[in-house]
Amino acid sequence: MTNTIILSDATLRDGNHAVRHQLTTEQIANYASAAEQAGIDIVEVGHGNGMGASSCLLGKATGTDTELLAAARAHLRDSKLSVHFIPGFGKTTDIERALEVGVDVFRIASHCTEANITRQYIEHVKRAGKTAYGVLMMSHMADADELLKQSRQMQSYGADAIVLMDSAGFSTPDLVTEKVARLVDNLSVEVGYHAHNNLGLAVANSIVAVQAGATMLDACVRGFGAGAGNTQLEALVAVLERYGYRTRTDFAHTAALARITEAFLPVRTPHISIANITTGVFGLFSGFVPHIERLATELHIDAFELCERLAARKLVAGQEDVIVEEAHRIAAKINNAAAVA
Amino acid sequence: MTNTIILSDATLRDGNHAVRHQLTTEQIANYASAAEQAGIDIVEVGHGNGMGASSCLLGKATGTDTELLAAARAHLRDSKLSVHFIPGFGKTTDIERALEVGVDVFRIASHCTEANITRQYIEHVKRAGKTAYGVLMMSHMADADELLKQSRQMQSYGADAIVLMDSAGFSTPDLVTEKVARLVDNLSVEVGYHAHNNLGLAVANSIVAVQAGATMLDACVRGFGAGAGNTQLEALVAVLERYGYRTRTDFAHTAALARITEAFLPVRTPHISIANITTGVFGLFSGFVPHIERLATELHIDAFELCERLAARKLVAGQEDVIVEEAHRIAAKINNAAAVA
Repeated sequence: MTNTIILSDATLRDGNHAVRHQLTTEQIANYASAAEQAGIDIVEVGHGNGMGASSCLLGKATGTDTELLAAARAHLRDSKLSVHFIPGFGKTTDIERALEVGVDVFRIASHCTEANITRQYIEHVKRAGKTAYGVLMMSHMADADELLKQSRQMQSYGADAIVLMDSAGFSTPDLVTEKVARLVDNLSVEVGYHAHNNLGLAVANSIVAVQAGATMLDACVRGFGAGAGNTQLEALVAVLERYGYRTRTDFAHTAALARITEAFLPVRTPHISIANITTGVFGLFSGFVPHIERLATELHIDAFELCERLAARKLVAGQEDVIVEEAHRIAAKINNAAAVA
Repeated sequence: MTNTIILSDATLRDGNHAVRHQLTTEQIANYASAAEQAGIDIVEVGHGNGMGASSCLLGKATGTDTELLAAARAHLRDSKLSVHFIPGFGKTTDIERALEVGVDVFRIASHCTEANITRQYIEHVKRAGKTAYGVLMMSHMADADELLKQSRQMQSYGADAIVLMDSAGFSTPDLVTEKVARLVDNLSVEVGYHAHNNLGLAVANSIVAVQAGATMLDACVRGFGAGAGNTQLEALVAVLERYGYRTRTDFAHTAALARITEAFLPVRTPHISIANITTGVFGLFSGFVPHIERLATELHIDAFELCERLAARKLVAGQEDVIVEEAHRIAAKINNAAAVA
């Protein structure tokens, strides 16, 4: 069993729901570039409801599928480009267009009981030599037996992996464990999990999914996504590391990604600031955060480095003066280095 | 083993961290009244760092401890009033003042390795015939053996319960399970858990704590609290119900509490809107929320009732037109009732 987890970043697709599909090609380009640098495995791009879904009923995207995908494609090299594709919204011609623009991974999705409608699209993608995932949406509406049956169909069409989506954020860890384990134990392909945070359980559900054998997880930077948002990428990576799982990226890189994207990606879904995740990772009292953020701004020092130093001194509440002391040490170090240079 | 969980609401104390201790007596009175109505067991009130902590270094509260506590006291009848008390910040005279104003539950706290400093205060509270909890802060900084040793000291002083605080939001479910189980298996008093959401795990950690035998949980409405916030009360209650645990309140009442408090309690910590939790509870696609909220506002109908109807129809994505249909049915029902009246 592998302990390396593939991360599929849905920020530019599921996140599009949170802004009524108004992500611009400039935002997409900027994010794709930052995700490539951070070592994200797969970057999913498009209208919230996938290819062909831009419409008056569901909301018009800012450009055609091809325009949105091309904006990301130009900035991805080691990271793969993927699309969400729901038959009905998406048509065969959309697959053709996505192949032309250079999409690597096609996530062919259906309601959790309707896998049969994905057949021609999965087969089409596989004939083109690309990767096809079978995605079962609203997976809380079917039991483990039914999900296995549907997954087996997708597997028989040639799907390289099956992804269970908790589209409503309904699931609790016990349900996730049962359903993922059933698939992992009975399929020959990889299994992935896509959580939503409606009950505050997205990170926990993702962790129990990998503990049950899933090897792929979906997440979004700063928890961007439909409804309560998806699994928050940087928190997920921190917890995966704690449990000994590896990813192509790491916590420091996803923390930087979260910081960088604050400049151009206004996230409207609830999320935990990277300062708060960082104190959590280092085990520092939550009440330190306002002090740390204020000093980082005033003295132009790195909040991450300050946290590291405070953690090394095992600081606890009541020792707030030490935060000031260490912050000034970092600032002095920077100033000395500048003076020498 | 009981399956009834006592909820201790830290909105007006840990939440005070999130507004630099600027909660007003008016906000405290309004919240206490709403919490009483919602059936919350215990309402904790005061400066973020507890009694006696209002100071230039840590931030001045808007009133004296007595003023803040009295504001809540006037609105609590079945709900109990509690204080956070850290020896050093808090002094014996503060305990006296709290007794005078009618505090029911004293949470006497120390760093996780310093339980001995709580002795005289726990004994004082017990002599006065009130409830004393021993609280171990920053519990990630001690292992299960050490926490048990410290808890036993507090128990020997007369503490009615021991609460483990994950003050930094550092802990993962495996750590919580190990530490809580160790205490539950070896103490004669109840055990409680206080989570922070820095890694997105507050709800999950609270659930594994009760699965390990804890019978008391701390939470805050809309996730209010220091740093990334505490466990979000209304999400927690929804998940507790899913797992078959009972509380004196229920999801509908905490959902109402979350809604009511939007009017007078501006929460600055990340949290999930009650609309998103509600769709999660009912298993509705997250992308429905903007439609549901828009229709609820336009037609003056109850979003909760609309969710119930959509769930009864097992609605899935692509059927957005049915949301409009059901919303108009509810509106027509209200209008008909008004016409008859």
